[in-house]
Amino acid sequence: MLVGIDVGGTNLKAGLVSKDGQMLAVEKWPVTPFEKSEDFVAQLVDLCRIVCAKQGVDPATLDYVGMGIPGAVKAGEITYTCNLPLQGVAVEALFRKEIDVPVLLENDANCAAVGEYLLGAGRGTTDFTIITLGTGVGGGFIVGGKLYSGGGMVGEVGHMVIEKDGAPCGCGRHGCWETYSSATGLIRLTKEAMAAHPDSALHTVAQEQGGVSGRTAFDTALTGDAVAVALCNTYVEYLACGAANLCSILQPEVLAVGGGVADAPAHLLMEPLAKMVESSCYAANVGTPTRVVKAQLGNDAGILGAALLKQVL
Amino acid sequence: MLVGIDVGGTNLKAGLVSKDGQMLAVEKWPVTPFEKSEDFVAQLVDLCRIVCAKQGVDPATLDYVGMGIPGAVKAGEITYTCNLPLQGVAVEALFRKEIDVPVLLENDANCAAVGEYLLGAGRGTTDFTIITLGTGVGGGFIVGGKLYSGGGMVGEVGHMVIEKDGAPCGCGRHGCWETYSSATGLIRLTKEAMAAHPDSALHTVAQEQGGVSGRTAFDTALTGDAVAVALCNTYVEYLACGAANLCSILQPEVLAVGGGVADAPAHLLMEPLAKMVESSCYAANVGTPTRVVKAQLGNDAGILGAALLKQVL
Repeated sequence: MLVGIDVGGTNLKAGLVSKDGQMLAVEKWPVTPFEKSEDFVAQLVDLCRIVCAKQGVDPATLDYVGMGIPGAVKAGEITYTCNLPLQGVAVEALFRKEIDVPVLLENDANCAAVGEYLLGAGRGTTDFTIITLGTGVGGGFIVGGKLYSGGGMVGEVGHMVIEKDGAPCGCGRHGCWETYSSATGLIRLTKEAMAAHPDSALHTVAQEQGGVSGRTAFDTALTGDAVAVALCNTYVEYLACGAANLCSILQPEVLAVGGGVADAPAHLLMEPLAKMVESSCYAANVGTPTRVVKAQLGNDAGILGAALLKQVL
Repeated sequence: MLVGIDVGGTNLKAGLVSKDGQMLAVEKWPVTPFEKSEDFVAQLVDLCRIVCAKQGVDPATLDYVGMGIPGAVKAGEITYTCNLPLQGVAVEALFRKEIDVPVLLENDANCAAVGEYLLGAGRGTTDFTIITLGTGVGGGFIVGGKLYSGGGMVGEVGHMVIEKDGAPCGCGRHGCWETYSSATGLIRLTKEAMAAHPDSALHTVAQEQGGVSGRTAFDTALTGDAVAVALCNTYVEYLACGAANLCSILQPEVLAVGGGVADAPAHLLMEPLAKMVESSCYAANVGTPTRVVKAQLGNDAGILGAALLKQVL
């Protein structure tokens, strides 16, 4: 029996998972503010004990606990994270003081890639890429059936510059893909369109929804508002630009798109995106373009992938 | 004993190579125009026989012959190439009618990557990337000590868009990295600078050199010409943009730069390039930036890599 834990900037989620990928129990709660890293790891231990208890499993009998961390990891430690004050924390050592089973740490986007590869949109492939549209744009790669995890922080695809000297990014560069294609980027583009078009229905919809979100552009486009339709097109173009770049560099069989934004109406997002990427990626010249599909596992991908990490190492 | 053959758009080069990577004999000649694909493969057979004869080796006793092809390959066939009329040619089958030893086909940039990885700039690493600045920008990746050769055409890094809606590229997209950073791109940028600055010393140098080449900008910058210095800076910025993208996506330990342009004076090319990439790649945040270095093997990388392919499969 396995436990997968998905450490997010705001939520902690754990699942008890069988070796064949069945989710047997889940527990989720918001990250409780903590001062000492021990207190943070104590939350992970509690989560692990709770999901085990739900099925009467003794935590000490787990094969291992896999954890997806929003940052870089190496040898059981968190080497870099910008969302939680956990840099340098020896998670594995602290965790094993309480539950002495092997702990595998991996980047959270990589865990989602593993989940989708083994149980979702990537099943049946050997070269698979996933991008996740959230606060940033995350990415994970399966290469020849194995997770590509160079230095525990591979897949910083969001910081690929697609518009030299473009919009400033928190990383210090300009024109990074995620400044346009993340949910945050979409919200920025939406606000810019609203400022430029005071008459657009974007304003009404945003007001009804209590503010601008990653849904505003798509929901307004559904009403036929021309500004919102053009905005969605622009968003998809940026998204397709970076996605086609990844496909030309890595030539995966399938590129899956996850994250909240991917739930937008298919005719406004996934359909035009797939068409653009499949026609512009370099392998289109050979007649073997990457297939672009929506991720299938939603929020469970990270837990399942963390739990099944050993299958792809 | 092994033979590596490097098939270029203009030259064919073959080498007899020992298992430990010693180049024992070399032969090189221009591609002779051919009508039938059999005639082309006959040239490869001749080359192979000649390098073997130089050391008294019977070609039938070779372990295998490795070939680097400027295009995509799969299962012994050329599936795509834009420089030679060889699409669909079953190279392995035709070759073995004359010399019946195993034939390994691989993309030429991938072969150069293998050569540099095993014997040059990538020695001692396990994750290594090489880019080659020539007519286009080629790339090859070693991942975990193995060649990443997805579909025989991975590493089309030159067709990564770094300036959305930028300069048109032969592939159909706009703003591809190679439209700025290849030797061809540098020549285009040089001609643009000359048109904008009729008084620049670029004109004199180009005239002395019999036309604009990939050397013109750097040679003129050495004279202190402000326009040429600014041009070189611009070129390096574009080059660094795509290189930092690759580093953020793949997190290699070392990124090597090969091709004729890489021979430019180090203080004008490799030094500022390394500084820019090492400060802007994402791993700089963790204190483990990719090291950027010049490739070491020159034109031999492709032959040596083709000959040693089996070590990285």
